[in-house]
Amino acid sequence: MYMKILILSKYAQIYREEIEAAQPEAEILLPGDSQADQAEIALGEPLLLRESLPRLKNLRWAQCTWAGVEPLLDAGQRRDYILTNARGVFGGLMSEYIFGYLLARERKILQRWQAQREKRWDSSLTGTLRGKTLGLLGVGSIGAALAQTAKFFGMRVRGFTRASEACPQVDDYVHPPLTASFAEGLDYLVSVLPNTPETQRLVDESLLRALPARAFFINVGRGSAVDESALVNALEAGTLSGAVLDVTGQEPLPAENRLWGVKNLLLTFHTSAPSFPKELAQMFLENYRRYLAGEALQHVVDFEAGY
Amino acid sequence: MYMKILILSKYAQIYREEIEAAQPEAEILLPGDSQADQAEIALGEPLLLRESLPRLKNLRWAQCTWAGVEPLLDAGQRRDYILTNARGVFGGLMSEYIFGYLLARERKILQRWQAQREKRWDSSLTGTLRGKTLGLLGVGSIGAALAQTAKFFGMRVRGFTRASEACPQVDDYVHPPLTASFAEGLDYLVSVLPNTPETQRLVDESLLRALPARAFFINVGRGSAVDESALVNALEAGTLSGAVLDVTGQEPLPAENRLWGVKNLLLTFHTSAPSFPKELAQMFLENYRRYLAGEALQHVVDFEAGY
Repeated sequence: MYMKILILSKYAQIYREEIEAAQPEAEILLPGDSQADQAEIALGEPLLLRESLPRLKNLRWAQCTWAGVEPLLDAGQRRDYILTNARGVFGGLMSEYIFGYLLARERKILQRWQAQREKRWDSSLTGTLRGKTLGLLGVGSIGAALAQTAKFFGMRVRGFTRASEACPQVDDYVHPPLTASFAEGLDYLVSVLPNTPETQRLVDESLLRALPARAFFINVGRGSAVDESALVNALEAGTLSGAVLDVTGQEPLPAENRLWGVKNLLLTFHTSAPSFPKELAQMFLENYRRYLAGEALQHVVDFEAGY
Repeated sequence: MYMKILILSKYAQIYREEIEAAQPEAEILLPGDSQADQAEIALGEPLLLRESLPRLKNLRWAQCTWAGVEPLLDAGQRRDYILTNARGVFGGLMSEYIFGYLLARERKILQRWQAQREKRWDSSLTGTLRGKTLGLLGVGSIGAALAQTAKFFGMRVRGFTRASEACPQVDDYVHPPLTASFAEGLDYLVSVLPNTPETQRLVDESLLRALPARAFFINVGRGSAVDESALVNALEAGTLSGAVLDVTGQEPLPAENRLWGVKNLLLTFHTSAPSFPKELAQMFLENYRRYLAGEALQHVVDFEAGY
């Protein structure tokens, strides 16, 4: 059996090579090919997929190369196909990012670099992740990977989730509505929440106020889940010890935005989970194998839920 | 059965409380107590132990709160007692330190902080530990903990060791003599070597030259294992991409030492594995239980080998 697969990506050449190597009988199409609009399967970035959707009359399955698929969820967009996203690929990368920043904070990596520049022998005691408590907003495949890494480092894990309870590394599950009590006693709060109607500004003044002053917040989900003014206020008042934002309401952040200069706030410019085309190609190929075999695909997006 | 335990530490009060809570029948002594010199067991920092050794006529076991026990190994020091060190406690802490710096490098934590200060949206691609190769100089209890963490993050591990081969997370073992081929293909080289006659300047010009230019070196063992001039030359010539030194030949480092200002060299001021008294007390108590039961103690130092 062979399928027409349309690739809509700036990494199209890499995807083409990986797919052809594994599935030589597949017919790879690129935009501009005379058969492009006949594709039954599309693989690519959400904005490019969105642009092509109206022309793809035979489309049955689209594999998105990002975890966030907002452009494909707007009212009026067609929903008569199976949409899968790349959330399964990002757990390991997100773990590296999150635990890079958690460890950098415990081990004072930035402070010691500063001390070195001042030729100051800074042997002040460092902290440890062991015994600390991590609160996860979102316990899907990325959150589960974070919980597993947290356990590896001896942390406790509290998880906020609508429906998932499948991750054995989460010690305590909390379900909506999210109340301030979720934040009590946390050392770290990490949001991996997608952008949906239910997640708008879940991290608000009342949640931030309930965090201990020693706590540290990281957002790798979507900027819309955070009330940025409330976050800035908490950091400037010292009621929150620090934060890392990989995502913000506006991206790229305009030069005049005050987030650039907030005390104890680090910005990482939406780099937490880069899409490595070779890994994504392998994920696509696994789903392609399932598609050919008539099995359920992995990481199917629920158009209603938005993730 | 009760034992006289002499505590020689700046954290003596914490040790006393922890031991009294777990072993109320033990007799805790502090320097200055009339019975202090009668102790059969001593617990403390190596320099303080060394000072007291000549007076402790009944000493049978000394538990050192550090991993490095050089002060107790000099020629002329008595060796008629069992010396145990704290190496078992430091595996987790060392993992946090090493992987903090490995992840900081892959995720460009320092560079992105710099970009933020310049209001520059730096979304350049980050790296990943997955698939990279770590070379460990030393595969004792600390090295084994590092190997386990490396595996957790999907790395390959090559281990240089005199005798240990018990760690299943090491993919390839290499035994002395150490030749340049150990360094070939490594992404990261980490030394946890103690200060012994066999480890002097093992990280020399020829080993450093054999590392790929992308490689990164970290020393958390002892400064004596590294030829610091050769390291500085490699960093300044760009034949080594970066290094972190937690230990140096001289500590604290004098202000005029050139290491302070070497390009791509980070100093961390001997903070990689802080001694947390409560953890050390638990380690002591486990050994104390074994001592009372007549079982073999953990982490016994071989006076000849020096660790």
